Amino acid sequence: MDAISSAQIAALDAADPLAAFRARFSLPEGVTYLDGNSLGALPRATADRVRDVIEGEWGEGLIRSWNSADWINAPRRVGAKIARLVGANPHEVIVADSTSVNLHKLIIAALRARPGRHAVLSEPGNFPTDLYMLETAIATLGGAHALTLTPRDEIVSHITEETALVLLTHVHYKTADVHDMAAITAAAQAKGAMVLWDLSHSVGALPLALNACNADLAVGCGYKFLNGGPGAPAFLFVAERHHASLVSPLGGWMGHAQPFAFTDHYEPASGISRFLCGTPSVVGMAALECGVDLHLEADMQEIARKSRALAELFMGLVHMRCAEHDVTLVGPPPGAPRGSHVSFRHPEGYAIMQALIARGVIGDFRAPDIMRFGLTPLYLRYADIVHAVDVLEDVLRTRAWQAPEYRTRQAVT
Amino acid sequence: MDAISSAQIAALDAADPLAAFRARFSLPEGVTYLDGNSLGALPRATADRVRDVIEGEWGEGLIRSWNSADWINAPRRVGAKIARLVGANPHEVIVADSTSVNLHKLIIAALRARPGRHAVLSEPGNFPTDLYMLETAIATLGGAHALTLTPRDEIVSHITEETALVLLTHVHYKTADVHDMAAITAAAQAKGAMVLWDLSHSVGALPLALNACNADLAVGCGYKFLNGGPGAPAFLFVAERHHASLVSPLGGWMGHAQPFAFTDHYEPASGISRFLCGTPSVVGMAALECGVDLHLEADMQEIARKSRALAELFMGLVHMRCAEHDVTLVGPPPGAPRGSHVSFRHPEGYAIMQALIARGVIGDFRAPDIMRFGLTPLYLRYADIVHAVDVLEDVLRTRAWQAPEYRTRQAVT
Repeated sequence: MDAISSAQIAALDAADPLAAFRARFSLPEGVTYLDGNSLGALPRATADRVRDVIEGEWGEGLIRSWNSADWINAPRRVGAKIARLVGANPHEVIVADSTSVNLHKLIIAALRARPGRHAVLSEPGNFPTDLYMLETAIATLGGAHALTLTPRDEIVSHITEETALVLLTHVHYKTADVHDMAAITAAAQAKGAMVLWDLSHSVGALPLALNACNADLAVGCGYKFLNGGPGAPAFLFVAERHHASLVSPLGGWMGHAQPFAFTDHYEPASGISRFLCGTPSVVGMAALECGVDLHLEADMQEIARKSRALAELFMGLVHMRCAEHDVTLVGPPPGAPRGSHVSFRHPEGYAIMQALIARGVIGDFRAPDIMRFGLTPLYLRYADIVHAVDVLEDVLRTRAWQAPEYRTRQAVT
Repeated sequence: MDAISSAQIAALDAADPLAAFRARFSLPEGVTYLDGNSLGALPRATADRVRDVIEGEWGEGLIRSWNSADWINAPRRVGAKIARLVGANPHEVIVADSTSVNLHKLIIAALRARPGRHAVLSEPGNFPTDLYMLETAIATLGGAHALTLTPRDEIVSHITEETALVLLTHVHYKTADVHDMAAITAAAQAKGAMVLWDLSHSVGALPLALNACNADLAVGCGYKFLNGGPGAPAFLFVAERHHASLVSPLGGWMGHAQPFAFTDHYEPASGISRFLCGTPSVVGMAALECGVDLHLEADMQEIARKSRALAELFMGLVHMRCAEHDVTLVGPPPGAPRGSHVSFRHPEGYAIMQALIARGVIGDFRAPDIMRFGLTPLYLRYADIVHAVDVLEDVLRTRAWQAPEYRTRQAVT
């Protein structure tokens, strides 16, 4: 990469078709936020919407708002909106619980739908909760299933007639490597297995096409690229062809065929609603809807295009200016398909990241040595990338990260 | 009950030691809210607190707030506060997920802790989600367990050496009948069984003494008497003696011994934290904390005393003025122990409740024929009870409920 002038950067920002979205977010002064893949920034609309929900719908409407504000349909309404971002039909996506809980529902449902098969596949280094939820689901089912963690390039060759389920995160949370959803899904289905895709690091960052890939099952996170707020509700996708045969192991009243008949016996709702469990967070649902609405206003292809351009710029500048300081790119090289974050390895990654944060450049650290930077096209400018690399180079060159205060580990890293 | 004068009612309100708490809630004009057992009213502090969380902690603090605003410890911090309301130690209660999901965690954990036993007991007409979660948990475990629904007076005599678990709702959601927690717990433990108490209709309404009853396990709801807001996070209690031996079937990353080590294998946290699963709703947690804090300011004994006085007044007035209109008390008679709601049966209960709601007296309807009125001592006055009965009597006497608009069923009843 050649040196790039500030005039060139200004021109990129001036020509950015998504530039106007930045003003739709509330961003703190003096901060370059490169962690929207961990917690998305606050849309300006959200604060007002949440106030309406709290003071109007809850405070004034009280219990009546289940009908008058249509709280009862929020999981389906917001789910149908997310369906447009993931290439699904509106009735195939529902918002509920957390990603982890939704993983459990679909893992158990899938394994019970393949009773003769006992092999489960995932990859080492998958996002931990995916692996943990697999482990504990297998234990709950009595331990007859065997979980194998196979390096990502060998997964397809390990799928056999014995495989019940493959669970993969579409975009890797550390490296931004992307799985080929269509190819893996087809390979699994050819052997009679199902694939459960974790879209937490994809949704809102990349265009997704679940139905075009003939996907079976998916889950995803609401608080990363969807900007739903800390601990936002998650979503799940079940292809329509599986609606009748898959049953949630968490048969809560909200997923009952007639929740307000108050019968003693569980009868799952028809369709995607059977994957609801207890009463959903109404405030969480409303905040998530604001973030999703912003993405529906934008063009996902445009978002993906800018994500790639930001990433190429970031990788190029770091290579040019920081490589001599032991900073190594992790994950896909420039030009290759990738998710919307960029990660670099450095033995002192933790302290370097603390020094960056102290200077207003916020990324995050993933053990043991990865500095991760999220690229969110709706609220980042090309100039922000240049600034982040300026600060990174300065911290490395001056060895500012050696200050003792950057070496104290915090509760959340 | 003798007729009671408005002067006497005014004197009761004037002498009420909890009277000042009413001003701490945001209550709509012209409404007498008797449904706080379904969705508690909005504490005034909550709107400000939620705005701080959204605009300050999320908007300004962004990802840093997991440390700087101590989001990471909210489940334990709010859990420790709820522990004071339920008679538990601070480290025995944690806030997480929904009541239904927490039921699942503890049902599966308890059944796996009693591997030789296959009988599970509950009562017919228990709150549906308790029964549904039992049914679906048993199915997940392979169907070897048998769920028996035993009338409430016969439960103790049905507990045998074969019983693994008894799951009961402490206060019945329709009738307000109260189980004897100490007696049932002791009877179950004498046979080697565990009891899981659903406190959804008790917590914040009655003083509870889990440890004094030697309780094993409990769950409870945040959005009823605790005023945590629609779909507030729920809580669970596990007695310290069970912490090491019970493992959650929902082994999400937040319940891992080292969530930020990002290892491939699940190792449950020590103590109550192992019952966390995914990322909790930060906003939901903050709103719940406001409601819990109000209860900690008040005296639970005082709340229970006023609850009983409101109920006796309500039952007495309805008996005196509405009995001739086919209104029959359901549940404990005057003088008997009860929860903090009062229910009446009427064949046209649905339409009558709609007519009441149209007149600003908000209770709810529970199929097939129950009109239910929640009594929340922190924000109800004795005068509100008199007003509610005035309106009820008027609706019955004029047969106002016969209007067609009151007979159209809404999505949420």
